[in-house]
Amino acid sequence: MIRVTVWNEFLHEINQPEVAAIYPDGIHGCIADFLGKEEDITVRTATLSQPQNGLSEEVLCDTDVLVWWGHMAHDRVEDATVERVHRHVLGGMGFVGLHSAHHSKVMKALLGTTLNLRWRHDDRERLWCIAPAHPIADGVPQQHELPIEEMYGEPFDIPEPSETIFLGWFSGGEVFRSGVTYTRGKGRIFYFQPGHEQYPIYHDPVIRRIITNGVRWAYLPCRTREPIPIENPEPLEK
Amino acid sequence: MIRVTVWNEFLHEINQPEVAAIYPDGIHGCIADFLGKEEDITVRTATLSQPQNGLSEEVLCDTDVLVWWGHMAHDRVEDATVERVHRHVLGGMGFVGLHSAHHSKVMKALLGTTLNLRWRHDDRERLWCIAPAHPIADGVPQQHELPIEEMYGEPFDIPEPSETIFLGWFSGGEVFRSGVTYTRGKGRIFYFQPGHEQYPIYHDPVIRRIITNGVRWAYLPCRTREPIPIENPEPLEK
Amino acid sequence: MIRVTVWNEFLHEINQPEVAAIYPDGIHGCIADFLGKEEDITVRTATLSQPQNGLSEEVLCDTDVLVWWGHMAHDRVEDATVERVHRHVLGGMGFVGLHSAHHSKVMKALLGTTLNLRWRHDDRERLWCIAPAHPIADGVPQQHELPIEEMYGEPFDIPEPSETIFLGWFSGGEVFRSGVTYTRGKGRIFYFQPGHEQYPIYHDPVIRRIITNGVRWAYLPCRTREPIPIENPEPLEK
Amino acid sequence: MIRVTVWNEFLHEINQPEVAAIYPDGIHGCIADFLGKEEDITVRTATLSQPQNGLSEEVLCDTDVLVWWGHMAHDRVEDATVERVHRHVLGGMGFVGLHSAHHSKVMKALLGTTLNLRWRHDDRERLWCIAPAHPIADGVPQQHELPIEEMYGEPFDIPEPSETIFLGWFSGGEVFRSGVTYTRGKGRIFYFQPGHEQYPIYHDPVIRRIITNGVRWAYLPCRTREPIPIENPEPLEK
Repeated sequence: MIRVTVWNEFLHEINQPEVAAIYPDGIHGCIADFLGKEEDITVRTATLSQPQNGLSEEVLCDTDVLVWWGHMAHDRVEDATVERVHRHVLGGMGFVGLHSAHHSKVMKALLGTTLNLRWRHDDRERLWCIAPAHPIADGVPQQHELPIEEMYGEPFDIPEPSETIFLGWFSGGEVFRSGVTYTRGKGRIFYFQPGHEQYPIYHDPVIRRIITNGVRWAYLPCRTREPIPIENPEPLEK
Repeated sequence: MIRVTVWNEFLHEINQPEVAAIYPDGIHGCIADFLGKEEDITVRTATLSQPQNGLSEEVLCDTDVLVWWGHMAHDRVEDATVERVHRHVLGGMGFVGLHSAHHSKVMKALLGTTLNLRWRHDDRERLWCIAPAHPIADGVPQQHELPIEEMYGEPFDIPEPSETIFLGWFSGGEVFRSGVTYTRGKGRIFYFQPGHEQYPIYHDPVIRRIITNGVRWAYLPCRTREPIPIENPEPLEK
Repeated sequence: MIRVTVWNEFLHEINQPEVAAIYPDGIHGCIADFLGKEEDITVRTATLSQPQNGLSEEVLCDTDVLVWWGHMAHDRVEDATVERVHRHVLGGMGFVGLHSAHHSKVMKALLGTTLNLRWRHDDRERLWCIAPAHPIADGVPQQHELPIEEMYGEPFDIPEPSETIFLGWFSGGEVFRSGVTYTRGKGRIFYFQPGHEQYPIYHDPVIRRIITNGVRWAYLPCRTREPIPIENPEPLEK
Repeated sequence: MIRVTVWNEFLHEINQPEVAAIYPDGIHGCIADFLGKEEDITVRTATLSQPQNGLSEEVLCDTDVLVWWGHMAHDRVEDATVERVHRHVLGGMGFVGLHSAHHSKVMKALLGTTLNLRWRHDDRERLWCIAPAHPIADGVPQQHELPIEEMYGEPFDIPEPSETIFLGWFSGGEVFRSGVTYTRGKGRIFYFQPGHEQYPIYHDPVIRRIITNGVRWAYLPCRTREPIPIENPEPLEK
């Protein structure tokens, strides 16, 4: 079983009725619901307002893959939480960053760049799969249309990805590396752009398939839970 | 001095008056002209109908970077020419493949995939620079519009590039990895998508800047002209 | 079930009694035997002397992952066989190239370089795992010693790998990228260096684990069996 | 002219006479001396004990490439210095990290991993060049022996490099990715392993050539000095 924790800052759904209408149980509730229907996945959720942001050492030790959605309150995530998550990823916990998670403290700490980008509300996206052999593309169509989505556009200040799986086309004239992977330490990271809170993106079956594939891809069976160590070994005898 | 050979199949310009009107000296003539104005570059040209397709062993030994434009007559390039060019690239000759060169025998031999793609005439392209620190992007704007260009779209059957420098946005709904680099053996390869023969793409100053940058990037000063060899060395004494 | 075909040129085992002693059923027999014990794998074998080198269109259509061992008779593999295997890899068949398969026609066609290297018999290898989060490294120790192995050394004329999983250290003074991955078209390729025919490398449980992991990694569930096509689509309606 | 600043913590040379004997002007003095002899390079130095660690905003604005050597006092580099250097690299300043700089706060911030490794004093290294077409390998031999050097060994906890140029072989049984490149934001990063303070590594002409090549490679002519921004543009008119 893959033990997944879905983290959400859970503010838009409380403050904006139109978001609550789309996600009555929160974005985390929606994602946890569809992931939890998979036979090989068990899910819990965690949110910003919980003690330790819901991500104590104990919770992280019990998590194989952490899914992260945050937007307006990145700065309210405690530094100690960032340190714990960062360390667990380097030790082998998978990390799936969704949409505005690109500007989270955790992703900045893991990737080292600003993760800045261009953005604009109310555009139309066509998601192109450019790596059909990648496990995250399994069962995903060559192209997929999101009739309304927030535009995220290049230049996107990220390290050159390990693999670029999806490119986004936006009707307003932009392109974006919409699905990219990284490995940091023993941890595998998948960033996936779709998911503006005002549109029902996480109800879309193709988007759900991609996130589910991403969770499976990011899961490391033989996780040691310790980052790669410093060692001072004896030389090989000649 | 960087010794450049610009190769062109040189058929459209002979058979289609509208192409000849844009490129009265051939596409190769146009490219050789702007490259030759650079202080550090000397240029010659070669075309399909010449003996050995204009690319004898002697010519290739005297070439630091080969620029290639071909489209309708890929199959008429002799296999011996392909073998020579392939070998010289592995030995350190730079290669800049333009537009429909993607389906040339040389690029297929170097990259090993079909290089298939989607295409459509008469679209509009916006070229996005996503690797501003790359030498090929030097002095190139963040975005550049080509009011009319042939659409080349994903999925593009190429190996994962060493670096993706440009992404193309097309008004008809497609995206494309429009500028990508590879290293094969000791040779550096830059593929650049713009350049349909019916539009004056190679008269565009930004396009010229990118191709010139590409030539300089692909140039290897200490070229040995021999591919990496097989060796059977003695062990290090202990 | 993952349908694996293990291909071997099967000449050393016939001509050299000391090799036959190590591999009485051939190298293919040994590899097929340990792979076939896995619950999710079914195996067949094929050899050079069979009609169509044992790799007819029918066999390849029935193969999810092809494992390849060849050494002294690369040139005797028919060009039509190479074309079929190449096309099936681009269409999604996984490919695991072992040891001297680096110089096979198939790997040269897929990767486009000479795949030249340095070599020397009778060295000692330490295999270092440098990508512990990769599925091919699952359950594999940080380092593993092969008391006697043929040295393969850098410079190894390969394209920059998608991921480098193992580095080999040799007592005679050389290093080698001993386990590397690529994707070409829809096909995933794993090259793994150990396996000189005169040493019982494929009886080593760690080596068996790595090859088994490689087969699972190279397997593509939603294989279409067609390479990425050329398409000439209509534009998106505005 | 490439404006280089060579930074050194400058403690070993003060506290250990045997290090002072090798580097009477400090490691920074030695490196500045050989770089400064190049016609296209001007050099200054900076050290830990200076105000703002010698790296004020003014100094960094006047620096195209920063060379960094640090070892025992990583923690004494001020966080504000780390923030400034990090921001300047993302804005296009090149960064060459030498030897024990792997554990500097700056490199950890840029790369996001622990950069842990194995180490042992008093080993012998053979440096193998595996990317002969890379500008950093220009004029560098295929192999180069360092009769005595500190062993740095895999697993090295770094992100998969953009390009791996050198692999190190150590007589005690280890291998290492000894020369690797990254791009972060608009900045280019070269990490190069040799340079333990107790051995005269920076007097070696091959090592000097590699560092000089690294400085030239990391230099970005059209540096804007601003990281990739956040933008909220209007859509393209249709």
